[in-house]
Order: sequence, then structure tokens, then C-alpha cells
Amino acid sequence: MFMRIDHVGIACHDLEEKIAFFERTFELTVVAREVNTEQGVKEAMLHIADGEGGGSYIQLLEPLGPDTPVGKFLAKRGEGVHHVAFGVPDVVQALDKIGGRGVRLLDERPRHGSLGSSIAFLHPKDVGGMLTELVQAAERQAGTTPNARNADT
Amino acid sequence: MFMRIDHVGIACHDLEEKIAFFERTFELTVVAREVNTEQGVKEAMLHIADGEGGGSYIQLLEPLGPDTPVGKFLAKRGEGVHHVAFGVPDVVQALDKIGGRGVRLLDERPRHGSLGSSIAFLHPKDVGGMLTELVQAAERQAGTTPNARNADT
Repeated sequence: MFMRIDHVGIACHDLEEKIAFFERTFELTVVAREVNTEQGVKEAMLHIADGEGGGSYIQLLEPLGPDTPVGKFLAKRGEGVHHVAFGVPDVVQALDKIGGRGVRLLDERPRHGSLGSSIAFLHPKDVGGMLTELVQAAERQAGTTPNARNADT
Repeated sequence: MFMRIDHVGIACHDLEEKIAFFERTFELTVVAREVNTEQGVKEAMLHIADGEGGGSYIQLLEPLGPDTPVGKFLAKRGEGVHHVAFGVPDVVQALDKIGGRGVRLLDERPRHGSLGSSIAFLHPKDVGGMLTELVQAAERQAGTTPNARNADT
């Protein structure tokens, strides 16, 4: 079901400052930036590796305001790991299976994620305290090669 | 510098219960169990994928007692993501570079990690609130193929 660790999402106060830190310290490269008003974040994807069905990334997340999910997370926990995302071949099928096994779904149907992906979140209390995201990379839907996810960035 | 997301380490109260949950819910397989008295944990590695220089895993961690690092984490934060580990080709070289860039090293020299790896931790306050581990998989040291890390499990 899980093909890769797609990304680790890290909540931060200052996206540009954190991008500069991760680039300088770990020699990573930003392959996409996005403002997602639906989720209330601006974000950047830093590429680590390519894998089956898509890539692996560090995702940096800065909230658009204090009343967003990431804004509330920062107020409560401070900067750090906000969620972990796993690549799946088909997010609808994965939701069916996982929901059928008793895990509460925060998204009953997929929504728009980073880099054109389809994503859905699972309830952290049902997954060992880890806010868990399922990611179906864009290329799978378009029928192109698995590792083309970075080609347009 | 980073070749893959090696693993996400999740702190839990009951290792056997969480292994059963992750196997059943996400169709994952345990490839190694270990008791690490130095770190005060018993742990299991659940295989997700193979990648450059080693595999990607979910690592489940149960503390050996309340006064261990993971025991204190659980008391303070509850179950959830404890650390994130990234695969590097050479952990000594990576420590030199990262330490030279101003990040405090919790381990100045590598120590024994899961699956025969060499590991070192970085100070979470210097890495965006994320307890960060560097992993050099065992095969790199032995000169065998990168994906052989699961071969003996």
C-alpha cells in the first residue's frame, strides 16, 4: 500500500528563513513553492530522492494566519514535525481500505496537494499520534513516468 | 548529502500493539526487532521501500523505562513522531559538514543504530524543532549492494 515516504511536513514561523537554512545546511534544493489557501499555508518542497510512484521531500509549512491548522499547531507545540506523508498508488482505494479497518478519515475524498498530487489525511489519534497523509503523485493520474514529478519545477 | 528519508521514528506505549496495528492497517511488514539498551528502547522496523544507499522504514519505539529519552518524550508529548532520519553516504563526513555549519551535534561520533547502521543525532532546536538522525546503512560500510539491507531479515 505504501510505496515510499513521500514527505515530512515541518511547521515553521518563517518559510524563507527555514528554506535558506535547509538549503545551506543539508544541500537540499527547493523544487516547488505554493500557497494553499484551502489549507491556510504557504509551503516549499525540498527534494531528497526519487522513488516508486513519486519523490521524497521535506515540506516546509508556514501558516497564513494564527487560526489555520498549522498556525494552531505552532501556538500549541512550536516548530517541528507537523505530519508525515506516504505515497500510495491510488488514494481513493487506500482510503477505502484504511477506513474499512477502523481509522477515521479526515478527508473522505481526496483533495489537492503539493505538486499536483491528490491527498487525504488520516486522524492522528488513530495512527499512533502521527498526523498521516496519503499522497498519490500527479504523474500516476496523468499516466506519465513515476519520476517525472520534478520535471516541471 | 541526504539520499533518502531513512525512517520516521514513532514513540509508543505498547510496541506489540502498534506493530499489529501498522501491519493490519497499512499492510506493512516488520523486518527487524531490536532492544537497544544504550538508547533505552525496544524497537521494530517496518519496511516501506528500498532506496539509494538503504531502505525506508517506519520505526516504532517503546521506552524501556520512564527515565529514558523516549519515556520522557511520551510523558511530555504523548505518542507520535519522535524523530526523522535521513540516509547519508558517510555519517562522519556528514557530521563534519553539518557541525561546521553551526548545527549542534548530539553525537560527535557515530554510534550503533537499527539494522547494523551507524547513526548520529542533531539538536532539534537547530533543525526547526525536528529531532534529526543521520543514518549510514550497514551495507555501505561492508561494501555490499545498497538494497541488501533487508536481505537477512
